[in-house]
Amino acid sequence: MLTIKSHSHDYSIETFSSLAKVFEGLADNSGLLFLVDHEIDRIYQKEINAAAPEKSKIVIEATEVQKSFDRLTPIFLEVLSKGLKRDSTLIVVGGGVLQDIGCFIATVLFRGVRWEFVPTTLLAQSDSCIGSKSSINIGDYKNQIGTFYPPHRVMVASEVLSSLPWDEIRSGLGEVIKLQLIRGQAGFDELMADLKDLNPDGGMEMIPKWVKRSIAVKKPYIEKDEFDQGIRNILNYGHTFGHAYESATKYAIPHGIAVLLGILTATYLSARVGLVDESHFLDLKLRLTPWFHPYETTLLKVRRDDIFKAIRHDKKNTGGSVNCILTSGPGRMEKIKVDFSKELVPAVEIFMDKKLKVTHI
Amino acid sequence: MLTIKSHSHDYSIETFSSLAKVFEGLADNSGLLFLVDHEIDRIYQKEINAAAPEKSKIVIEATEVQKSFDRLTPIFLEVLSKGLKRDSTLIVVGGGVLQDIGCFIATVLFRGVRWEFVPTTLLAQSDSCIGSKSSINIGDYKNQIGTFYPPHRVMVASEVLSSLPWDEIRSGLGEVIKLQLIRGQAGFDELMADLKDLNPDGGMEMIPKWVKRSIAVKKPYIEKDEFDQGIRNILNYGHTFGHAYESATKYAIPHGIAVLLGILTATYLSARVGLVDESHFLDLKLRLTPWFHPYETTLLKVRRDDIFKAIRHDKKNTGGSVNCILTSGPGRMEKIKVDFSKELVPAVEIFMDKKLKVTHI
Repeated sequence: MLTIKSHSHDYSIETFSSLAKVFEGLADNSGLLFLVDHEIDRIYQKEINAAAPEKSKIVIEATEVQKSFDRLTPIFLEVLSKGLKRDSTLIVVGGGVLQDIGCFIATVLFRGVRWEFVPTTLLAQSDSCIGSKSSINIGDYKNQIGTFYPPHRVMVASEVLSSLPWDEIRSGLGEVIKLQLIRGQAGFDELMADLKDLNPDGGMEMIPKWVKRSIAVKKPYIEKDEFDQGIRNILNYGHTFGHAYESATKYAIPHGIAVLLGILTATYLSARVGLVDESHFLDLKLRLTPWFHPYETTLLKVRRDDIFKAIRHDKKNTGGSVNCILTSGPGRMEKIKVDFSKELVPAVEIFMDKKLKVTHI
Repeated sequence: MLTIKSHSHDYSIETFSSLAKVFEGLADNSGLLFLVDHEIDRIYQKEINAAAPEKSKIVIEATEVQKSFDRLTPIFLEVLSKGLKRDSTLIVVGGGVLQDIGCFIATVLFRGVRWEFVPTTLLAQSDSCIGSKSSINIGDYKNQIGTFYPPHRVMVASEVLSSLPWDEIRSGLGEVIKLQLIRGQAGFDELMADLKDLNPDGGMEMIPKWVKRSIAVKKPYIEKDEFDQGIRNILNYGHTFGHAYESATKYAIPHGIAVLLGILTATYLSARVGLVDESHFLDLKLRLTPWFHPYETTLLKVRRDDIFKAIRHDKKNTGGSVNCILTSGPGRMEKIKVDFSKELVPAVEIFMDKKLKVTHI
């Protein structure tokens, strides 16, 4: 068990051998209301129903549109009509979308109720489950509404990862890889070596180890800078571009895979501004290719202008320059202001024109 | 200038001679977006426009229905389309409804933006402007959604109170009186003496003094217990009943006046359970009558059952007993659990049947 410190309350990450064990521990508790991902509820209905009868369960489809502000109204009303009280606990079971919805509701209902999170995607288990953030869309504005309010407990069951589609695994690996790159060369090399055994048919055994190591890398950043005003920014490595790639492709690229493509872009930009040798970018591209290919082709079909517009609109940027997390190598990331027209645009243009295409795999 | 400590950030209460002075100070600042009460905008258009041009102003009618969760969507979208950025400041000008809407938006937009509050009702100036709370309605559920997020600065201009209807003044006085009762006998007596000169035609000169004194009484409670889990509960004196009276009369009784009627009820209940002599209740009723009459007749028309249902549904109560702030006299309030059927119901019945009617004024 690992404990994370937060402005609001400390919380623990607990590991379980199966989802059944998680729900066994929740059975016979009163005052629980469950918010469950539709797909997880379908696959694990028997296990879930042991603790969550229909009258205290709300099933939600984990689509991006569900985390729109105006879609929250019927969920709030169902939560209230199913009897959640200020001393109840909301149990949220699912991936990032469920976490966003559940966290937001738990933050503002009765000005804050207890909530616990059972992350069921690799992305949620290894990254988003700690750090407090929720993000909600409104109109055409993505993730502009949100709160900082961590769960009171995180319960991780690796078992559930085995039912995920391959691209969801790869998407989760995007953040796992990012975190090891932030940690340094040795961790990254070890991860890459382990990943050689992973494929759509097997090799998942070592994933729980990397889930734990991912959380361990992220922990000090969010504990020191929960509100993302300083050192935590480093965790955005790959995200300025990644978010833009998601948006410009209308979310055809899974988040973590867009982050990998964003990491490559940021690293190429780092080489262009003289922070690192281009050979580091080329090496990184070679080693990351299995984890993003063939999504680079999705990106290459997009109008360049849509990408630049999306970068400009990213909530983290104001004015004529853009803050990017650049790198001088594994373990060495820093926030650097780059000129939008003179530095960023040409780097992205050349990256797209000449550097991104995968010629052999 | 007074400073209030908060979990989120300390903030100051600054006093200005007029609204014009407030807006003079805000003119020529960039990155401000104004959320202004419709009525205040109408009366003080010239003063407001000096700092808030149309392109950075949103005017909102201060009706209860406006603070519904689903009514927030168009306001959020207007705030975003008018260019509020994460480093902008939202300036909220109005009473409680504007405060609730503005505070909620400022809390969750970009996970928190700076906001400043210009309270324009006596209720907001003397009570709600400090303490961090926002309350939003959803469906038939009142005030069940909300946040704790104080403004970064409060700017008080007493001048605006002169344009308020008499019942809004009396409503504000409800909380002013409550705070002095909490403070003790001497403050309450002094306030009552001052109020003898106040009537719909004049006598407002001493109000700014009582605004300051109200804030001074409330300050230590919210600083010690911002999240309302202990000592701050005392400030709910009169509110368990007051909220129920508002709800049962479909908000025909202004908030602070319902609180005065609630204070009388809580004090009568205190006498019934032996905490205080009934003479204290009778004295209080006599002295408070000018500040609630004739709203007691509105209350007396309501079905008793609607009142009891509303008390049961009040978010602060669970189970077969009800937490009430009772009193053994001015300056001596405490939270006491009373049995709903055996203590609360009979006390309210007798209060309504025999004690509330005003026979001479």
